[in-house]
Amino acid sequence: MTRFVLVAGTTETAKIDGISAAGADPDLRVHTPSADAELIEYGHLVRAPVVPVSPTGCPTPAAVTRAVRERVGFETLVVDAGLVEPTGAPTVGVGATPGRDVRDAEPVPTAPGAWVAARDLGRNLPDDELVVGETIPGGTTTALGVCRALGVDAAVSSSLPQNPVALKREVIETALAASDLDPGEAAFRPRRAVRLLGDPVLAVVAGLTAGALESGTDVILGGGTQLLAAAALVRHAGVAEPLTLASTTYVADDVDLATVTADLDCDLVVTDPSFDGRDDALARYADGEAKEGAGMGGALLLADRANALDAVADGTLEVMERIGTPHEP
Amino acid sequence: MTRFVLVAGTTETAKIDGISAAGADPDLRVHTPSADAELIEYGHLVRAPVVPVSPTGCPTPAAVTRAVRERVGFETLVVDAGLVEPTGAPTVGVGATPGRDVRDAEPVPTAPGAWVAARDLGRNLPDDELVVGETIPGGTTTALGVCRALGVDAAVSSSLPQNPVALKREVIETALAASDLDPGEAAFRPRRAVRLLGDPVLAVVAGLTAGALESGTDVILGGGTQLLAAAALVRHAGVAEPLTLASTTYVADDVDLATVTADLDCDLVVTDPSFDGRDDALARYADGEAKEGAGMGGALLLADRANALDAVADGTLEVMERIGTPHEP
Repeated sequence: MTRFVLVAGTTETAKIDGISAAGADPDLRVHTPSADAELIEYGHLVRAPVVPVSPTGCPTPAAVTRAVRERVGFETLVVDAGLVEPTGAPTVGVGATPGRDVRDAEPVPTAPGAWVAARDLGRNLPDDELVVGETIPGGTTTALGVCRALGVDAAVSSSLPQNPVALKREVIETALAASDLDPGEAAFRPRRAVRLLGDPVLAVVAGLTAGALESGTDVILGGGTQLLAAAALVRHAGVAEPLTLASTTYVADDVDLATVTADLDCDLVVTDPSFDGRDDALARYADGEAKEGAGMGGALLLADRANALDAVADGTLEVMERIGTPHEP
Repeated sequence: MTRFVLVAGTTETAKIDGISAAGADPDLRVHTPSADAELIEYGHLVRAPVVPVSPTGCPTPAAVTRAVRERVGFETLVVDAGLVEPTGAPTVGVGATPGRDVRDAEPVPTAPGAWVAARDLGRNLPDDELVVGETIPGGTTTALGVCRALGVDAAVSSSLPQNPVALKREVIETALAASDLDPGEAAFRPRRAVRLLGDPVLAVVAGLTAGALESGTDVILGGGTQLLAAAALVRHAGVAEPLTLASTTYVADDVDLATVTADLDCDLVVTDPSFDGRDDALARYADGEAKEGAGMGGALLLADRANALDAVADGTLEVMERIGTPHEP
């Protein structure tokens, strides 16, 4: 049996101006992971006060993941990796607290403990296969931080159509200095890398994945460059089992996923949801917004396996219609 | 769509000698709600260290509920109504903390807040129908307490074959005195009744049910006398919508459910899982052990609706086999 695991958390890195589009503005962005979890769990918002959209109104990829779930059917599990706002979705705790700004000396003090608790959870889950996704605004910047700390030459994608790569690199150079760490200095010390340069979601995804792989469970990481950073953490923890990254064409068109997945000895599956050429809100994906998140690439792989890929676009619009269009784009 | 909601919590009332059989001994009993939640969610134990069984080895009714879920398929939600031990099952919080001994002056200070949070959750869940069950060792005693506080003449069942009714009544008379409350004095003040004489699970079940009913969601209370006490709380909160109690023959054979459900304007459905005359561990149910719990009566109703009642016994044995027989009976 396959279970979809959403690892949901926050980092204050998302407050840096121009870093993230995962929420209409910085104040609303903090609700995005809680809302994404509710959407995937219920197909409705339950406690979250606002539909997660980008500043231009591009809907959250969680709507895509939910649409796949409604067509294909899969069990879910949401892991609380440092949520700050309450969610109506049921969550499992692993001792993670919200991440501080990556430019702090130690932005994720709970990372090592959360890694261990998530690893134990991953070892004990009874499923044959896990598809693991993330929701954390600002997460591509901390993913870059982790890769720099590990010395992995990683691509960096973005939820924004114009990826603010220069800003992210500048933030991470400041963060390395603040943590008194040279690039690559945390190689093969993944918990140190994520504690000093990462976010709590990366710690939990990596720990959960390591534990699942060690206990013989197959793992598909559903996402883009954040999940690649998690894969790097897993490899640097000495876990060598087969591992798959399932992403979308939107990420693959933006950055070179093939080289890094090959370097990390991961399989790469890229799925195209065929949102191009549409005259509705999904066209924003084809324009390079959002791209990934909330396990969208993993969900699309499950849809493809079930020969239900054609139904995803209509299903996503149905979910969006149900939760209501935001009043202000 | 139907969702099964397990409200899981604890009360120190369970530590009173001779009160409960929901766990092999008082030290292990505190794990029972966490383990029940994992069983229903995963069909396996994930974090709980011990299979919940009675002192004689009678398996938890959660195994029956899980067996039905594996045959029928339904969405689940576990609400944390004051767990003390960690659970690997995902939970939604409503601000409940573990209940203190009912003989304290105010055993459930979080009851009014948890009621309101659970009511809001119940209002916002998108489902057509909820089946609500409970897991809280010691809960039949606090259910008696709530009924006494409300002035409802309720039956009291037990997880023990010889129901320690005299002990429960004595405990509740002490509890009424400790809370400076006369019998019936909390009528139509349900939050006061559950705060002074109840447990956190009753507060959450009642709040959730009230909210769901108010928003047009059908509710089936799956259980015995504890769920009857929750129904009494709902009625005393002025919520008059149709409400069903779904129980087992084992409870119905032990106490008069018909009169109280009629008094509370609730429909009563009693389902017989046909565990009688078996030569395996399920025969203990026919001998009057456990009887109910973890929404078993509600799950059996769902099995009956799906014409899958015949498969429940074998399915339950399969679940028990999978989680392992406890080493010490």
